[in-house]
Amino acid sequence: MRRAFGAAVQRFALPTLRSSAPKLGVAQYAFAPVAAMQSMRFAATLSQVARDELAEETSTEKEVPQVPAGWKLERKQGEATFTMTKTHGDEKITVYSQLQVLDPEIAERRDEASAVHFPFTVLITRNGKTLDFSLTHVDGELVVDGLAHYESPAVAADQSAEGQMRRERMYQGPTFAELSHSFVDGVVNYLEERQINDDLSTFVAQYSYWLEQMEYENWLKAIAEFTK
Amino acid sequence: MRRAFGAAVQRFALPTLRSSAPKLGVAQYAFAPVAAMQSMRFAATLSQVARDELAEETSTEKEVPQVPAGWKLERKQGEATFTMTKTHGDEKITVYSQLQVLDPEIAERRDEASAVHFPFTVLITRNGKTLDFSLTHVDGELVVDGLAHYESPAVAADQSAEGQMRRERMYQGPTFAELSHSFVDGVVNYLEERQINDDLSTFVAQYSYWLEQMEYENWLKAIAEFTK
Amino acid sequence: MRRAFGAAVQRFALPTLRSSAPKLGVAQYAFAPVAAMQSMRFAATLSQVARDELAEETSTEKEVPQVPAGWKLERKQGEATFTMTKTHGDEKITVYSQLQVLDPEIAERRDEASAVHFPFTVLITRNGKTLDFSLTHVDGELVVDGLAHYESPAVAADQSAEGQMRRERMYQGPTFAELSHSFVDGVVNYLEERQINDDLSTFVAQYSYWLEQMEYENWLKAIAEFTK
Repeated sequence: MRRAFGAAVQRFALPTLRSSAPKLGVAQYAFAPVAAMQSMRFAATLSQVARDELAEETSTEKEVPQVPAGWKLERKQGEATFTMTKTHGDEKITVYSQLQVLDPEIAERRDEASAVHFPFTVLITRNGKTLDFSLTHVDGELVVDGLAHYESPAVAADQSAEGQMRRERMYQGPTFAELSHSFVDGVVNYLEERQINDDLSTFVAQYSYWLEQMEYENWLKAIAEFTK
Repeated sequence: MRRAFGAAVQRFALPTLRSSAPKLGVAQYAFAPVAAMQSMRFAATLSQVARDELAEETSTEKEVPQVPAGWKLERKQGEATFTMTKTHGDEKITVYSQLQVLDPEIAERRDEASAVHFPFTVLITRNGKTLDFSLTHVDGELVVDGLAHYESPAVAADQSAEGQMRRERMYQGPTFAELSHSFVDGVVNYLEERQINDDLSTFVAQYSYWLEQMEYENWLKAIAEFTK
Repeated sequence: MRRAFGAAVQRFALPTLRSSAPKLGVAQYAFAPVAAMQSMRFAATLSQVARDELAEETSTEKEVPQVPAGWKLERKQGEATFTMTKTHGDEKITVYSQLQVLDPEIAERRDEASAVHFPFTVLITRNGKTLDFSLTHVDGELVVDGLAHYESPAVAADQSAEGQMRRERMYQGPTFAELSHSFVDGVVNYLEERQINDDLSTFVAQYSYWLEQMEYENWLKAIAEFTK
């Protein structure tokens, strides 16, 4: 049993569900302490403990968050990522989200500050060019961190290590925190017209919790099997 | 309009021009507030705001910093990097600089400390081997962070993701902060004999500002065009 | 002369030998100040200083830490890594350790906190699947940071940049700090049965010091030769 649903995800910059649930509006699962497990603490094999933990985790049904209208969501079991796509006029829009593996020190600092960060990326492709928005869902709100422009959609979407390094050598755009209010308002309005707003980023956060829980359960199954 | 020239570059570890100009000796641009823009704050499209911002930015001419004698500088539009090369006796010397995209938290901490960091690399190749100096221009001075030795110039210069990972697995040299004064003096004198000194690193910083400004203007143009 | 043996390795998250030796139980080397070197501080070339430093470093014999029984250790000169392998029943176990090149700011913070971190990885392969343990030797103890499960040993062991990026997109497992005590005990017992414990991680730390010293001496030799 994890001490709390979602508690295991600090490494991924996810807060405990207990504290974040009211803000995020996702279901809050409370587990009763399992006294029996304490007594076998020193005797149980890893495989047994993993099976017990899995039984505990799967005893509560978790509802998958509902994908906002108009978006198509894709994920693959075992992956810590998901994508959402839709079209808007002549634009193709892709949301790309990946659970973050944080440096333990950064995770600890954020945990102390109760800061909840869900970074994600939105690519908008039109006329053979791409805008690449760096966004974060933080404390219930969508924040724009950056915006790059790529002459080639293939360069923008290349998820290989070489592709990432190529982009890092390109100009990544100015710091949004330092731009004029009118410019930032322009960006926020532009995103809002495409339903990329607080609601979308709240969904990204909720779905990240759900995905982490599903992967955690699969992980417990795999650990139990491997160490049998 | 950005609140200040260079203000948008915090993400790249560049300070605002206003505070750094006296130290760096680059021109200081002050923009009058554009009252008109405030009034259309909620009405203007992103494309309009980007065009207005571009007009503002290009209304002042920016002089390109003069490349120090003996060096040949190369850059490519759209890239956040530049290289400088020269020969020194039987040595081939390459300076490699890349605008830094900082983690927002690190950027904020540095901004509070008013720390100005311009990391760059100098490769010196001779007799089929390469020294790789990690340098930083910080608060007007050149600081030596590290020195690696590579048996192969190709390994040292490989800018692919695989090349970087290969180098990370190699010994990267000791921490300079902990070396004896005489050794560090030896390194500093060695670099000085090749005109790799405070003046060069000041140029690297100045050129980084200029390059960022040029790329920022191109970025505004691209955003205005994309969102038209 | 470095101010202290091991002092140059802060960049690699190694503490000075002086302070860590008692805890780690490795030999402590004290160097007398070399007054002669001070006088030639401004006259000596880098090649001379490197040769003097090398003579100083090699004047004391360093004993290579003894590999724990049952393990086979491999390293390659010039590399900042080493691997240890053994079999356990039908399992193949690999320890992978790499000297850390830290961001100077993180290095400084850790140095202030006198925190000693030696992160390393243990891969256990069985029945065509792999467990990937992220471990750290910190303040004399083994700490479990994470555990991932891979369906393919080839994916787990791929040390290319693309391989690392592929793994980062996969689910990396929950945060250990937040798991139940019984689960963490299960993991610790599982590792202990394979002699992956405080003793092993102490050896990893000791061998890292020794490796760094050997590489430092080779580096001095290479610098002296290059700058001749």
